[in-house]
Amino acid sequence: MTRSSVTGLERRLARRVLETRGDPRLRIVLWNGEELRISDAPPVGRVVFRDRGLFLDLALHPDLGLPNAYADGRLEIEGDLPTVLKLVIGREARTPETLAKRLRDRWELFRRRSKSLSRSKDNIHRHYDLGNDFYALWLDERMAYTCAYFPTPTSSLEEGQVAKMEHVSRKVWLRPGERVIEAGCGWGSLALHMARHHGVYVTAYNISEEQVAYARQRAKAEGLEERVEFRQDDYRNVTGKFDAFVSVGMLEHVGDENYGALGRVIDRCLLPHGRGLIHSIGRVQRRPMDAWIQRNIFPGSYSPTLDEMVGILSPHDLAVIDVENLRLHYEKTLEHWLERFEKGAGAVERRFGTKFVRTWRLYLAGSIASFHVGNLQLWQVVFHRGRERDLPWNRAHLYRDGS
Amino acid sequence: MTRSSVTGLERRLARRVLETRGDPRLRIVLWNGEELRISDAPPVGRVVFRDRGLFLDLALHPDLGLPNAYADGRLEIEGDLPTVLKLVIGREARTPETLAKRLRDRWELFRRRSKSLSRSKDNIHRHYDLGNDFYALWLDERMAYTCAYFPTPTSSLEEGQVAKMEHVSRKVWLRPGERVIEAGCGWGSLALHMARHHGVYVTAYNISEEQVAYARQRAKAEGLEERVEFRQDDYRNVTGKFDAFVSVGMLEHVGDENYGALGRVIDRCLLPHGRGLIHSIGRVQRRPMDAWIQRNIFPGSYSPTLDEMVGILSPHDLAVIDVENLRLHYEKTLEHWLERFEKGAGAVERRFGTKFVRTWRLYLAGSIASFHVGNLQLWQVVFHRGRERDLPWNRAHLYRDGS
Repeated sequence: MTRSSVTGLERRLARRVLETRGDPRLRIVLWNGEELRISDAPPVGRVVFRDRGLFLDLALHPDLGLPNAYADGRLEIEGDLPTVLKLVIGREARTPETLAKRLRDRWELFRRRSKSLSRSKDNIHRHYDLGNDFYALWLDERMAYTCAYFPTPTSSLEEGQVAKMEHVSRKVWLRPGERVIEAGCGWGSLALHMARHHGVYVTAYNISEEQVAYARQRAKAEGLEERVEFRQDDYRNVTGKFDAFVSVGMLEHVGDENYGALGRVIDRCLLPHGRGLIHSIGRVQRRPMDAWIQRNIFPGSYSPTLDEMVGILSPHDLAVIDVENLRLHYEKTLEHWLERFEKGAGAVERRFGTKFVRTWRLYLAGSIASFHVGNLQLWQVVFHRGRERDLPWNRAHLYRDGS
Repeated sequence: MTRSSVTGLERRLARRVLETRGDPRLRIVLWNGEELRISDAPPVGRVVFRDRGLFLDLALHPDLGLPNAYADGRLEIEGDLPTVLKLVIGREARTPETLAKRLRDRWELFRRRSKSLSRSKDNIHRHYDLGNDFYALWLDERMAYTCAYFPTPTSSLEEGQVAKMEHVSRKVWLRPGERVIEAGCGWGSLALHMARHHGVYVTAYNISEEQVAYARQRAKAEGLEERVEFRQDDYRNVTGKFDAFVSVGMLEHVGDENYGALGRVIDRCLLPHGRGLIHSIGRVQRRPMDAWIQRNIFPGSYSPTLDEMVGILSPHDLAVIDVENLRLHYEKTLEHWLERFEKGAGAVERRFGTKFVRTWRLYLAGSIASFHVGNLQLWQVVFHRGRERDLPWNRAHLYRDGS
């Protein structure tokens, strides 16, 4: 870090960043130690610009400049990272969009191309095959990498993940002996839960090699390999007929250009009395993914609106019978993940380097902030064939024994 | 009824009706007593064609011919009316649409014009101002003319309507002292329930003169006139700021050309922490209303898809937090209504005539059948501002004390 002097132009640019993208409760500290403020409100965090190159990055990449600089260490955040990001992302969410931003968004939504099976595999490989050890550091003991459902706000992450699996199982009203198809099964925890606690047979698809290997091992260790079959294949290759379809946290990776194909898969594999559940991160309004997340964390991902989720189902006369928004539960889940991640950050840094740690820290903290301010939502959508009559009379069965 | 002879052409036409729009479990009986069958399955009902004029009606008005003939008494149905209609409407729902039908549907969806305040009033007047006495004959004692929520399938209509009001109140999480706006309040039962049992202040809108007069009288009789204000006005004229918005069974009359206006009204009248509920009949796929229902029962009505309901909210950053499909409860509600209607049919006939009785009988029985076969759905959609955090942690509060 150079202690070189700050020009008047640089000072004005920094102040402009604070005014347009910051918050009165934040300060910007420049590389010479000078602190800028736009209010005398007690600060909750300080954003440290370590060098003047940052302004050029920001001018060239309005969406990527700040997060890239954080990942590189050219920008530091003092104070609680999620708290600071809530202010910044909340400010963004409340700011009316400029025409330039709207046009950029349209272009982003338009330019995404259809996703081939092999490209999907690359995208998934890049994110999920970082190594089971890496995820084991900060996920719960069952390795569920999706929104938990906490019995109470103070429940543990382990309790929240088990409750989520049970909640999903009850929502699709599993009965012993039934056959379930799971699209995108992660490390297999939900498939194993359904087989063990609801006596069903599960065929679970996932294209991540490392995850499938881990899941098969778990099935064997738990004596469930006769009941749960893990297939390393794309959801579009699903064959067979099933009583229930579940997909928890896969839709984000499907991309909206493939929603039609997903709807056809569901229709094809569901028996006439079949029902299903899709669980996905979503957004109230149609927007492209955050550019930095796309590039650095989830290539090819897209968070749908609720009407886009419904639109997967309606062409096949699949009627929505229940929708629940678990946004606050995802914020809580991410808080647990970040806390565990920080505990293991030393090990991650030794293996993957400093930039990787800072990238993932920003991703987890930024996601907390996005759910906090409502930029992201989490919907569980339950559906049946529109004419089906063998349905639970109400939803009270989800809430028996206080779970 | 003429006992005149049946020609070969007429016999072939009748058989064609049975084959294309009937069911193997139905028979057609012609005006000379001759019975046609397409299977030897035991019949569950017989459709009696009382004169040959019916074929001309059917040719000229494919969608209106049969129900008009039933209303006129030129067509009779022997056997349980809802059971027979379930077969006919179920057959329709499963039959792939012809191109002609699809084009007709498109045209119907297109040609509907925007609804002025005065035209809305005419439409509502025509249906709801038939007289409170008429509705009192077959609705529950609180005069709720919307889908009930039955604690169990054998609960009474009265229990189901009270449970519905309580379910709605809990879904919008009312707290004592809050202000609630209700759009389309019928005879006022929900507004009065919320005020009495949840300690809130309600402003309730309805353009039906008779209903508002009745509701005001009830508020007075129950000592709630300080807490509930009934305004005889259109929902588009709502003013003020409220903690909660509820609308139960109005959206069907709004018409999709006015959904944008409804969304703006909700956004305008909800406080930043406000939440709301819309309860409406809907359809899985976009379709025009049944032509006969449009003409004879509900002029200007439209049943939205779930994505159309969501689309009312999302432009204003209102996030869906809960959707429930009560389709089977509406079927049950209509069974209660039809049963009561039949008990009072003599009185209705003396006042309004035979055709009126037959029209309403067909509407009620046809609606039972439509919900039964999944042609119609019933959605309750709950929403909050997308960034709101003061939300119930889960939905268990809806299911306390077994309700």
